[in-house]
Amino acid sequence: MDPYTIFADIIAGRAPASKVYEDDDVVAFMDIRPMTPGHLLVVPRVAAKCLAELDPVVGGKLFQVGQRLAGALRESEVGCDGVNFFLADGVTAGQEVFHVHLHVIPRTPGDGFGLRGRPTSPHRADLDYLAGSIRGALARTEAAEGR
Amino acid sequence: MDPYTIFADIIAGRAPASKVYEDDDVVAFMDIRPMTPGHLLVVPRVAAKCLAELDPVVGGKLFQVGQRLAGALRESEVGCDGVNFFLADGVTAGQEVFHVHLHVIPRTPGDGFGLRGRPTSPHRADLDYLAGSIRGALARTEAAEGR
Repeated sequence: MDPYTIFADIIAGRAPASKVYEDDDVVAFMDIRPMTPGHLLVVPRVAAKCLAELDPVVGGKLFQVGQRLAGALRESEVGCDGVNFFLADGVTAGQEVFHVHLHVIPRTPGDGFGLRGRPTSPHRADLDYLAGSIRGALARTEAAEGR
Repeated sequence: MDPYTIFADIIAGRAPASKVYEDDDVVAFMDIRPMTPGHLLVVPRVAAKCLAELDPVVGGKLFQVGQRLAGALRESEVGCDGVNFFLADGVTAGQEVFHVHLHVIPRTPGDGFGLRGRPTSPHRADLDYLAGSIRGALARTEAAEGR
């Protein structure tokens, strides 16, 4: 099995998985390297290496299935009282399997999971400058795509 | 301004924000405490304290706007080559503003951002057991909601 495409093998039934949900577009199963007990992955059936390749309709469904699973985790024997969603798009963001996957991570007090890093407090002018650059990039990319 | 409901003030125009996107359902703006430069928040216009209160149609849109912004960030002066999505649902998950928000965090090599925690390697039988409990909880909660 190629670890970079293991989710395609799971979807095709060639690799084992402890599934919790599936429909025509989305499959969800236990992460075999959980950050906390009950850590789930929600993946599209149709392979998409990255967010840019992912059909937005299916992207929206990943989130909606994540919402439903966040509720189920709280009612299950996992017994969490909080949930994190996490997604890594690109090697620099920590992506290791090149098939889009939304992490749904149950949280309990003192579980040791969280974010690493330190927030900064930029000036409003710097935030406005970057916001303008992002708005411009969004307009250019979507004009190029004919949106 | 109440920090717990500051996003409602931003949406209503009572508090400043460096916006990058808005439509009838969703508003996106710069996080004033960015983990990396260009860190964005995508929020629903209609207040929802948590995932359970959020209309799934709007939840799907948060993800779709996140996908579009992930593309724009790469083409903007932020100049990232990866993006993380992060969402905290509940105090135990690190939620601080009680209005659902999807973090869209640009990544560059060596930026110091990432996840804290250590994954484990449970036996398949333990994964299967929890998966069964989660499937059961999903069926119960959705039957109760008449889905």
